[in-house]
Amino acid sequence: MRLHDLPTPSLILDRSKLLANLAGMRKGVGRHQVAFRPHLKTAKSVDVAHLAFGGGVGPITVSTLTEAEYFAQHGFRSITLAAGIPADKLDRAGRVAAICGHLTLVTDDLETATAMAAHPGPFKVLIEIDSGERRGGVLPADPALPALGHALGSKFAGVLTHAGHSYLTRTLADIRRVAEEERGAAVSAAERLRDAGLVVEVISVGSTPTAMHAERLDGVTEVRAGVYMFGDLFQAELGSHARDDIALTVLTSVIRRRPAENRVILDAGALALSKDRSTGQTEHDIGFGLVWDLEGRATLGNCTIERAYQEHGVATSDRPLPFDALPLGRRLRVAPNHACLTAAAYDRYYVVDGGEEIVAEYDRINGW
Amino acid sequence: MRLHDLPTPSLILDRSKLLANLAGMRKGVGRHQVAFRPHLKTAKSVDVAHLAFGGGVGPITVSTLTEAEYFAQHGFRSITLAAGIPADKLDRAGRVAAICGHLTLVTDDLETATAMAAHPGPFKVLIEIDSGERRGGVLPADPALPALGHALGSKFAGVLTHAGHSYLTRTLADIRRVAEEERGAAVSAAERLRDAGLVVEVISVGSTPTAMHAERLDGVTEVRAGVYMFGDLFQAELGSHARDDIALTVLTSVIRRRPAENRVILDAGALALSKDRSTGQTEHDIGFGLVWDLEGRATLGNCTIERAYQEHGVATSDRPLPFDALPLGRRLRVAPNHACLTAAAYDRYYVVDGGEEIVAEYDRINGW
Repeated sequence: MRLHDLPTPSLILDRSKLLANLAGMRKGVGRHQVAFRPHLKTAKSVDVAHLAFGGGVGPITVSTLTEAEYFAQHGFRSITLAAGIPADKLDRAGRVAAICGHLTLVTDDLETATAMAAHPGPFKVLIEIDSGERRGGVLPADPALPALGHALGSKFAGVLTHAGHSYLTRTLADIRRVAEEERGAAVSAAERLRDAGLVVEVISVGSTPTAMHAERLDGVTEVRAGVYMFGDLFQAELGSHARDDIALTVLTSVIRRRPAENRVILDAGALALSKDRSTGQTEHDIGFGLVWDLEGRATLGNCTIERAYQEHGVATSDRPLPFDALPLGRRLRVAPNHACLTAAAYDRYYVVDGGEEIVAEYDRINGW
Repeated sequence: MRLHDLPTPSLILDRSKLLANLAGMRKGVGRHQVAFRPHLKTAKSVDVAHLAFGGGVGPITVSTLTEAEYFAQHGFRSITLAAGIPADKLDRAGRVAAICGHLTLVTDDLETATAMAAHPGPFKVLIEIDSGERRGGVLPADPALPALGHALGSKFAGVLTHAGHSYLTRTLADIRRVAEEERGAAVSAAERLRDAGLVVEVISVGSTPTAMHAERLDGVTEVRAGVYMFGDLFQAELGSHARDDIALTVLTSVIRRRPAENRVILDAGALALSKDRSTGQTEHDIGFGLVWDLEGRATLGNCTIERAYQEHGVATSDRPLPFDALPLGRRLRVAPNHACLTAAAYDRYYVVDGGEEIVAEYDRINGW
């Protein structure tokens, strides 16, 4: 089967680029003496997870209990759920912990920590630290931090932070500054907890930009990153990778032509691409996606999806589109703003290895 | 089972509001001597479709071949696929047509029309007319229109237009003006085709705002609308319905509290709500969603999701949030910007009838 045989829209994963991205991050993190715990919230696929570990299994991060269940059922033994959950999900978490053996949760709340400590489930808990993003977590200097650690009792395992504000940076120097903030926040929180008599085994940090570019990770025990596997246009704008490294695209067909306006309409719209507009604030705004030819090359110029309706993407370019080469049904590929959101519309990846032949199908899960 | 027993995030459909919305549109369209062909692209659910026909079946509109297959398999006999498809999907369309008996496609392209005419599939075809949105369709005065009709041969059945630019209106007078543009474009295109010797059976128009508010539909044979079933905050801003008519909400839990910033973090983020920002250009910008209490009331003030991460929604309000009543795990409901996109993240609706008891589960389909 080849790209020409697939229904459109379909989700295409270029394994050669994926493998290069996996190797690149292993090399980036390998500069430091830390463990790597890839985040599977982007891929949500056991096939992709196996590739991240050379065919086997290893420690992973997930964003939902549904992902934790799925990977536990597929033999992954060490899973960190890096998003806070309410106490009424602890029974379900306990069942996952019993399957995989090593499930780690996070909290930043005293009441939840107390409920976690009292729960019979065999999971561990990290205290979430706010390293500057101001989303979740307690500040490293928060007077309540030691009490939170003590409240977790024997379930306490360490600290975790995610420098999501690395996504606001636009230069390598800024990414390195945020990476040092991330490291500093986690390590100083750990020191305060150690000073309070607690044993801090895990000091976990990470985001794709900081994992790739941190200059030092002294004191950190593990690094997490996820979107680097596929890459996307927003990460390319941040400098996490080159545009050509993007492994995830949406296969689409031309369904209408409007030569007088230099526009074509594609069957990849808001549902197929998502309404994510991450590049709206970066140097190169690509609308709802960047349109490449079937081979994944930018032969249509800076061809972007300027409007996204439910099932229609309206594409235009900074140069005259070659309408003779764009009949109805012509297949193209769209690189996404944000891989995590685009992939979520699909239940499988059609896998290519640089070319047009479909060499595999990888399943993926969605939902909660 | 009650709302308290569901996992979060979950998709909640209030049947009492849905039924009122269905009745309201029947009444709105019933002012005119036209058929009504509800669009199922929002609901994508056979259970909801049955409610639209008092428990039975009737003529429907869909946006994908996957929807057409699903509804055909569930006994719907007259289906219009209102989005253009490339010629390589005609075999699949032919199979759907054989199942349901009356499948109608659309085109605005001569080459595709020729391929449709030559195809053995028992479907009919409408010519898509551009009534002002400048997305798809040929203009009513386009010199190529009669040739397009003749190219379709015996498959030609009429014209279809969708005044999607009604979504740019902000007053009732503007909606009525666009409705008249929509009607005028369809009827004048039909007249030109009749003048060219063609038999025009179907003159199909519609969007939720124009279907509800059109002052006259002389010459039109059928009206389509879809998002009115559930409603959403964008349609409320347009005046299609009141905020209180919104039947679709996302059930979510508080997973973090940041009292110093008057913020709570919910487990409904970008995947659970979508990144749609339709209200960004309307009078009341509700960010990524409007947060109601568990009963669906605005007791938290103008509480909106200001940031949406993959699994986290950051909510704040124009008044101090009652943190004593918002412990971790507290359940809330979020009304969406755009029902079609929010619903697409889920594979089922949990149905309530005004209260908190789950009275049914309705399945829904996604994908292509």
